[in-house]
Amino acid sequence: MYIGIDLGGTNIAGALVGPNGDIVKKYAIPTDAERGSDAVIQSIIEVITHLSDGVEILGIGIGIPGIADPITGMVLACVNLNWYNVPLKDKLSNAFKAPIYIDNDATVAAVAEFVVAQENKYTDAVMLTLGTGVGGGIIINGKVASGTHGIGSELGHMIVGEGLYQCNCGRSGCLETFTSSTAIIKYARHLLETTDTPSELRLVNPLHIDGEFIFNAAKNGDMLANQVVDRLAKYLSIGIMNIVSVIDPQIIVLGGGLSHAGDFLLDKIKSQVGTLKYFDGSDVAKIEIAKLKNDAGLLGAAMLATL
Amino acid sequence: MYIGIDLGGTNIAGALVGPNGDIVKKYAIPTDAERGSDAVIQSIIEVITHLSDGVEILGIGIGIPGIADPITGMVLACVNLNWYNVPLKDKLSNAFKAPIYIDNDATVAAVAEFVVAQENKYTDAVMLTLGTGVGGGIIINGKVASGTHGIGSELGHMIVGEGLYQCNCGRSGCLETFTSSTAIIKYARHLLETTDTPSELRLVNPLHIDGEFIFNAAKNGDMLANQVVDRLAKYLSIGIMNIVSVIDPQIIVLGGGLSHAGDFLLDKIKSQVGTLKYFDGSDVAKIEIAKLKNDAGLLGAAMLATL
Repeated sequence: MYIGIDLGGTNIAGALVGPNGDIVKKYAIPTDAERGSDAVIQSIIEVITHLSDGVEILGIGIGIPGIADPITGMVLACVNLNWYNVPLKDKLSNAFKAPIYIDNDATVAAVAEFVVAQENKYTDAVMLTLGTGVGGGIIINGKVASGTHGIGSELGHMIVGEGLYQCNCGRSGCLETFTSSTAIIKYARHLLETTDTPSELRLVNPLHIDGEFIFNAAKNGDMLANQVVDRLAKYLSIGIMNIVSVIDPQIIVLGGGLSHAGDFLLDKIKSQVGTLKYFDGSDVAKIEIAKLKNDAGLLGAAMLATL
Repeated sequence: MYIGIDLGGTNIAGALVGPNGDIVKKYAIPTDAERGSDAVIQSIIEVITHLSDGVEILGIGIGIPGIADPITGMVLACVNLNWYNVPLKDKLSNAFKAPIYIDNDATVAAVAEFVVAQENKYTDAVMLTLGTGVGGGIIINGKVASGTHGIGSELGHMIVGEGLYQCNCGRSGCLETFTSSTAIIKYARHLLETTDTPSELRLVNPLHIDGEFIFNAAKNGDMLANQVVDRLAKYLSIGIMNIVSVIDPQIIVLGGGLSHAGDFLLDKIKSQVGTLKYFDGSDVAKIEIAKLKNDAGLLGAAMLATL
């Protein structure tokens, strides 16, 4: 059996997972990141200990919301947890005999999607997670590709244009500032403040306007919400074609909360990507919505040991 | 022995190359692309036949100025030669027994740089060629990575901003429209026409203003030429960091005509890349100027057979 841990800003979620990706047991406790990394790591150990009770564990995988070096298992930077250069693998290796694998949460979601949900059909595949931020996971030749220094597959930080606000990485124009829920909420507010376009978004408490609300309004024909979604689609298509221009994978899958918009989003992306091809008739990667909606973080982390 | 062919818009250049990358003999004839692909392929056959006379040939490699599918050996698109879906490998395989390898000219330059000049030191490496256009070559795990559909490593066509003019791929904002010699000549003309900035560029026949002229003026302290070079450096650094955000290689090498500006260009790039890091202290790829100045296309094409 394997253990997968999804280290989030709110909870440390864990699952005991069978070799075929079947979740046997789950357990979660609050992260309370303000306690500092040592206390959080103690809680991770508690979750793993609870799940592994009486079971032989072949591998423990942890998805972290930031940048890790998969070789050393060092967490290089997790802005939301305020972790920098935390030797997570070393600290867990002292507590458990099973091998420990650490990777970025979007990479882990890619593993869940391509290994479990897509049954290893693809050797060269990319996942983009569209949530509060934008994450990326890359599989090349059937292996996770996180780069030489652990800073590869940070697809949300490709620079694709001139943005409306500074990214939390300190730069401007990152894909994440156009295509995350944060980005579309900010852009919707910008349009509400600077235009007179009629919109149902004007009728609700601004605090209720989240990514799902904007997509639902757009589906209902709201003009302003459609402007917001169309801008997301434009830059997401640029991001997708930039990925194609570098690694030209077999498939690019869209996951994360905004991907729940489904075909409404996918159709816009596909038509924009069509206009961005190099020449008529050129084949590009398949673009799909992620099959796995929930538990991708837990499953993928557990499956890291099997790659 | 190996044969390398550099198929250019002007000449079909060929070389007979030893197993260590030593050029034994060279031969070239004009391309005259307007004759059509069948006549040009006949000329390629003539060059190969001339070079292989009396020698055992283990492989024939051809660098083409466009997009090829390395598996099928089909040239998908070569805008400058007006070639689309030309089965180059099939046609050459009818004429020669040795295996035939076809890839993009920048990929071939990357092979020459990393296999010959850098002596296979790097397993994960990227080459950017800064010439009339901008090309890219990617090595991942010691192998050429041209993607699933042959349209990977087209690094000049990453979209990195809002450009001044439309790229010849039909899109806007491609890296090539900021960082090629074409791009800096156009931007210099734009500044000459729309500003009063004093410049030695105003004193010469506009037809003499090429990439080398602009870089030399910038080195001499010319303010307008420095504005042009600084804009190139800004967007080239964004392009480099976008490559890092996807595949995070060990090294990125700058080749092509503009790279002859050497440390003057390199220093500007390195300082800009420093400001674009995700977090203080993060390691990124080494950035260097290509060691091979000439014959990269011939050598790399010949070496394709050895990978």
